[in-house]
Amino acid sequence: MALRDSWIEKRLSGEWQVAGGEQSGTTPSTHGNGTQASNGRNMSQMHFARQGAITEEMHYVAKREKLEPELVRSEVARGRMIIPANVHHGNLEPMAIGIASKCKINANIGNSATSSNIDEELKKLHHAVHYGADTVMDLSTGGNIPEIRKAIIDASPVPVGTVPVYEAISRVRRPEDLTFSLMLEVIEEQAEQGVDYMTIHAGVMREHVPFVRKRITGIVSRGGSLMAHWMEHHKKQNFLYENFDEICKVFKKHDVSFSLGDGLRPGCIADASDEAQFAELKVLGELTKKAWEHDVQVMIEGPGHIPMDKIKEQVDLEMEWCHEAPFYTLGPLVIDIAPGYDHITSAIGAAMIGWYGASMLCYVTPKEHLGLPNPDDVKQGVIAYKIAAHAADLARHRPGARDRDDALSYARFLFDWNKQFELSLDPETARAMHDENLPDDFYKEAKFCSMCGPKFCSMSITQMAEAESGQDQAERKQKFAELLVKVQGAGG
Amino acid sequence: MALRDSWIEKRLSGEWQVAGGEQSGTTPSTHGNGTQASNGRNMSQMHFARQGAITEEMHYVAKREKLEPELVRSEVARGRMIIPANVHHGNLEPMAIGIASKCKINANIGNSATSSNIDEELKKLHHAVHYGADTVMDLSTGGNIPEIRKAIIDASPVPVGTVPVYEAISRVRRPEDLTFSLMLEVIEEQAEQGVDYMTIHAGVMREHVPFVRKRITGIVSRGGSLMAHWMEHHKKQNFLYENFDEICKVFKKHDVSFSLGDGLRPGCIADASDEAQFAELKVLGELTKKAWEHDVQVMIEGPGHIPMDKIKEQVDLEMEWCHEAPFYTLGPLVIDIAPGYDHITSAIGAAMIGWYGASMLCYVTPKEHLGLPNPDDVKQGVIAYKIAAHAADLARHRPGARDRDDALSYARFLFDWNKQFELSLDPETARAMHDENLPDDFYKEAKFCSMCGPKFCSMSITQMAEAESGQDQAERKQKFAELLVKVQGAGG
Repeated sequence: MALRDSWIEKRLSGEWQVAGGEQSGTTPSTHGNGTQASNGRNMSQMHFARQGAITEEMHYVAKREKLEPELVRSEVARGRMIIPANVHHGNLEPMAIGIASKCKINANIGNSATSSNIDEELKKLHHAVHYGADTVMDLSTGGNIPEIRKAIIDASPVPVGTVPVYEAISRVRRPEDLTFSLMLEVIEEQAEQGVDYMTIHAGVMREHVPFVRKRITGIVSRGGSLMAHWMEHHKKQNFLYENFDEICKVFKKHDVSFSLGDGLRPGCIADASDEAQFAELKVLGELTKKAWEHDVQVMIEGPGHIPMDKIKEQVDLEMEWCHEAPFYTLGPLVIDIAPGYDHITSAIGAAMIGWYGASMLCYVTPKEHLGLPNPDDVKQGVIAYKIAAHAADLARHRPGARDRDDALSYARFLFDWNKQFELSLDPETARAMHDENLPDDFYKEAKFCSMCGPKFCSMSITQMAEAESGQDQAERKQKFAELLVKVQGAGG
Repeated sequence: MALRDSWIEKRLSGEWQVAGGEQSGTTPSTHGNGTQASNGRNMSQMHFARQGAITEEMHYVAKREKLEPELVRSEVARGRMIIPANVHHGNLEPMAIGIASKCKINANIGNSATSSNIDEELKKLHHAVHYGADTVMDLSTGGNIPEIRKAIIDASPVPVGTVPVYEAISRVRRPEDLTFSLMLEVIEEQAEQGVDYMTIHAGVMREHVPFVRKRITGIVSRGGSLMAHWMEHHKKQNFLYENFDEICKVFKKHDVSFSLGDGLRPGCIADASDEAQFAELKVLGELTKKAWEHDVQVMIEGPGHIPMDKIKEQVDLEMEWCHEAPFYTLGPLVIDIAPGYDHITSAIGAAMIGWYGASMLCYVTPKEHLGLPNPDDVKQGVIAYKIAAHAADLARHRPGARDRDDALSYARFLFDWNKQFELSLDPETARAMHDENLPDDFYKEAKFCSMCGPKFCSMSITQMAEAESGQDQAERKQKFAELLVKVQGAGG
């Protein structure tokens, strides 16, 4: 039985007790496992939170984040935090995205028409989760899309997001053949399968499309470009905007969270922070309020390519116009001239936007702009983004965030090489780099590495200087031991 | 004959005409090549600048930076820009470090006692310069140090910096055997050999050492720790501080620039921006004024490990206390837990500090904290720092800085894959990543890559959407062609 099955079953069966006393005993009772339909009842975390209830998912999140459960509840109720947790994703280990919790990262996986298969995608999922992705998005656009997605959801302990328009497009001959009823059908199927959040490009309006003509790189969101093409072809308004309530009805039944897509995000530095992007952002704010009327959870997608001096403005405007719904950004990349290294160009922007207040950072791999990432690209992207998110947590002074850094720094100064590797984001790589020149076990306690050699290690010389003035390393050793218990005792 | 030989010969021979009319005809004339001694005359760029003279080096820099020569002169005179250009480094292609010019990067090369040889170091030099390092530092601490350095200076078109205390230490049995006269001897020899700038740890004072005991990682500058050890052993003040004028006299004769070392820079996030670091920074400001009294050029070294929220303060204080002398920082790293990826953790901090006003960024390679970098590590470090410095130039809105980004973005939108690779910081890597899935020549004009496949490329769909409304790509093609002339015509 999966972690959440009994929680959800209880909630569906009417045993659920809302904090404050009101019993939800009128809910139709179900038999069997918790993945049954909710028969129209609102199952969203936001709905429970607004009724004053602290769900098991909220308790779980509170423990992970070292926050008070009531704070989690109130943030979810306010819309400033989301817990993407589809009732059909039983083996999910609930996590939260929001300014009150640690900065999160997402890894995109999924195939395209030219490459990949299920095994390769499951390998990517494994790499992503192993190196620390907090959510994954399955962006498959080729092959048997529902089958790949089912395999990913079944195997994933982290929330799974999708962009349903990809599957919808795969079912029509030309993009202009898309209809809302087909989209809704796909959305419902994916919701029933257990997708935790979905990117919906409901904010790209027909009147925004002319703004794009001034740009160098036009529209760089696949969903955004598909909607623009559809609107230009039919001379009609965005059907996702016009039928937004219908989508909310599906979402609240299964507790799918919105990731309101930034279909007009800038695709290069020249296009950053332009009329098109900001016009859409305002509509996303309007849609946020609509979703919240249904108690449906929302986060807002953000760019993309933004120079450093314009990053803060992105967060400030998102918070103002989108009512502080969690901001979920792709990078942003801070330059355009480094294809092959865009995990780095974007980690710079991601760290900064996380510091300024974004709640989740969508990774970019070294392959961005060049091809579909393979499992090693996924690893490189995830690690670059663990760095960015952790840098953001340190800069925001999150309680306890620095403990692991401090422990590693003690290990470094005290020449405990094995602990230094263990405390690293990627122990195997750290160890391999050290061992490239000095492989022998002897060097795991040596007071130097090959960078400076035995005569020039500054930390070793500092210890000599301290010895000259009568200081030993007992105090540092004591503090190191205490930190290790705190960091590794708590599961690292 | 090397680029600068005739310039320097002219200046030594008395042919030099100071702008404004005053002829410097009293200078003793020399015969032969320009690498002869200056017989005690002040040969520093700052000295000429302050006399109102625009040297050939300043003209050269003005052309490279697209600045007015008079602006370069006045910035050098003011001390806000330096042109590290030892009169004995004839084949140097002069460059500038300062807030008015583009953000620069330095690559550290050099061996240690445990590894490396001359060929390997020349390979590192080649990689560093090929991928765009603006200066290199030879930090060799083992083997035949003067021989390695000579080979590097002879081969290097970019300024070469050193840390002379390393060679001095290699000549004594124990660090405490160091004397000022030995240091001065080494400094003079290196100056005569053509070293363009030297790190001198004259700001670490005896009274600062106790501050370090509270730190997790003590002193992480090799020079800083050696001076601290020497002071603690002898119970005496820093001999570099006490004999600073003697060093200035050597420097002005050969035009060596100071890189005033931050011997007490923090070595971990916990130690960032502490009493020790700031106490030393204030002394560096005092020494800057002393050096300027000799018309000797100065830049100030900076940290190290600093969380994002404290980076701006570093620049603000440096500018205030060190009178706007160019700031030359190592990273900073914004977290401590990613050994093996510290080129990324530090590129984040480097980009930000460059935006805030640092003039040169000393790279960090993936091997930092783990071992001596090999040539591929040098490449990875240089590219990460080209990204950081370029991001800083974009964020500071340097005129023309974005042209190459815009050209590459047009290439991207117009599916000119070959131009996209050409305009990249590392064309071979970009091409190889693209070709991993789609190697055929046919795909070099394809309207997709393997990331999205033929049906899902947002840029291709945008072009379809624009075609629906009657827009073709003629205007973008025209602008792309114009930018290409500007970017590639000017040497890329």
